[in-house]
Amino acid sequence: MPSEFELIRRFFTRPVQHTELGVGDDAALIRVAAGMELAVSADMLVEGRHFSSSDSPGALGYKTLAVNLSDLAAMGATPRWATLALALPAADEKWLQGFAGGFFGLAQKHKVDLIGGDTTRGPLTLCVQIMGEVPAGRALRRSGAQPGDDIWVSGVLGDAALALAFRQGRVELDRREAAACLPKLYLPTPRVELGCALLGIATSAIDISDGLLADLGHILEASRAAAEIRFDDLPKSDVLRAHLGDAAVRDCLLAGGDDYELCFTAPAERRAALAELSARLDLPLTRIGAIRGGAGLVLRDGAGQAMTTEATGYDHFA
Amino acid sequence: MPSEFELIRRFFTRPVQHTELGVGDDAALIRVAAGMELAVSADMLVEGRHFSSSDSPGALGYKTLAVNLSDLAAMGATPRWATLALALPAADEKWLQGFAGGFFGLAQKHKVDLIGGDTTRGPLTLCVQIMGEVPAGRALRRSGAQPGDDIWVSGVLGDAALALAFRQGRVELDRREAAACLPKLYLPTPRVELGCALLGIATSAIDISDGLLADLGHILEASRAAAEIRFDDLPKSDVLRAHLGDAAVRDCLLAGGDDYELCFTAPAERRAALAELSARLDLPLTRIGAIRGGAGLVLRDGAGQAMTTEATGYDHFA
Repeated sequence: MPSEFELIRRFFTRPVQHTELGVGDDAALIRVAAGMELAVSADMLVEGRHFSSSDSPGALGYKTLAVNLSDLAAMGATPRWATLALALPAADEKWLQGFAGGFFGLAQKHKVDLIGGDTTRGPLTLCVQIMGEVPAGRALRRSGAQPGDDIWVSGVLGDAALALAFRQGRVELDRREAAACLPKLYLPTPRVELGCALLGIATSAIDISDGLLADLGHILEASRAAAEIRFDDLPKSDVLRAHLGDAAVRDCLLAGGDDYELCFTAPAERRAALAELSARLDLPLTRIGAIRGGAGLVLRDGAGQAMTTEATGYDHFA
Repeated sequence: MPSEFELIRRFFTRPVQHTELGVGDDAALIRVAAGMELAVSADMLVEGRHFSSSDSPGALGYKTLAVNLSDLAAMGATPRWATLALALPAADEKWLQGFAGGFFGLAQKHKVDLIGGDTTRGPLTLCVQIMGEVPAGRALRRSGAQPGDDIWVSGVLGDAALALAFRQGRVELDRREAAACLPKLYLPTPRVELGCALLGIATSAIDISDGLLADLGHILEASRAAAEIRFDDLPKSDVLRAHLGDAAVRDCLLAGGDDYELCFTAPAERRAALAELSARLDLPLTRIGAIRGGAGLVLRDGAGQAMTTEATGYDHFA
């Protein structure tokens, strides 16, 4: 196997745009702009659990970075630097080239410098740490949602989970429907621009990685609040809407995960500002419910009746 | 297996000392002091390659952090924050408690806040990212060694490799000798205080993780310089000295790795200052050779004759 140093040099060393010292020394050196805090998030992906070794390496490289960018989007932070640690069973250069291509393609788009990491032999495991800047004291958090706030989500929910269910044979889709959903699973779009634009508007935010109910649940727990959600208002693609009769598909919508949209809260006075933002970003922003005092999450049907749900990923709490 | 969230909460959430927002949100938030750069380093450790699952989890937790602190020491940076990502085959709570104990024990000693990470199921794999502060523009690097500079190392070299060779049956040690060497392998002391004290004194620095010749080689490559080393001046423990007739033991000294001492260069005018520093830190600092123009590394015996070496880890280069 080519030495660790060779692999790093060939596949993971590219010129840095805004870094004092990049890959090559004992540590990298970065300067955080005055008045900014550094937002830091890490993620480990294990073969067999988060991805398959038969997945396209390019898509995997892309998604590995994308899910981390999504964590920063949820803080309203601007991504700036990343480190990447890989354990590989063998130096499969074609695989590495594909992976690096997907990773750097997205990194370049977001002006993220890869500044360090590690390469070693072992079962295929990836660990990314992402760092971004956010104005000091202004980051969006899971806490902060206030009774009376509206609850919003970006984009549509459930398509990634629907694609996974299709791939696993739990749901039937025709070719056109599958083609519409599969990119959502492999190549999610982190809502970085939205996150930054929500600074000073949103009272709380989270990215939907585990599923709407679970992740909104984290907001409620951190904010010590309750929520009412209107099922009919949940934004859904045409494909998902067509299959809504299937309980497994409702689970995809509520609890499927892998959406990487933002769920956030904002005072009612901000509705006009958010409509403008939605138009400016050409990104649907949908009001799905409201924050209440107390605890718990209630889902209401079109008639306003509380719905029960066996949705996986939903942690019941007081 | 207890949920990811439970494991994080129970074993890896402790109060932070100097962090704006710690574990629990989508990202952590830190403030880098004005005038400082952030030094960032990452390391991935894989079971079977870097450690054994039968190793004491406490020692592993300690060493996982120690080797990363050593990378910061080599930059002259003060360690401040870390993230820890773990893949575990099962939620072995006794193991996790031991690991966390070793990790946090050392973290507390160095006032390092654990601010984030990830916990997932998979083959036992650890990924640490360490972050520290260093005055802007003043970090020690592998580049910067000048012809005429002295070459120095801290502590003694070879004992960790000797302990490993003993464990693997390649070298024979009596009980007293083994007891003296084994702690060097399991619980290395990162030279953080030394690294910081070398700012403004050393012209280059590296921490010895792969072995003296290999790591000094990195300095020479980055600095575009050559070196002459005096074999007899290499600092050795009494145990190693007693076994120096064995070629395998000379390999431990020159190329064994796992020393985690600092190798650095400094102008001859700094000898007095370094002697004072050595006394103040109660840490041997030994002058082992000199930087020359050109390229290559020459090892000289007591008579000044060039020595050849089959030492593993030594990358020959012009």
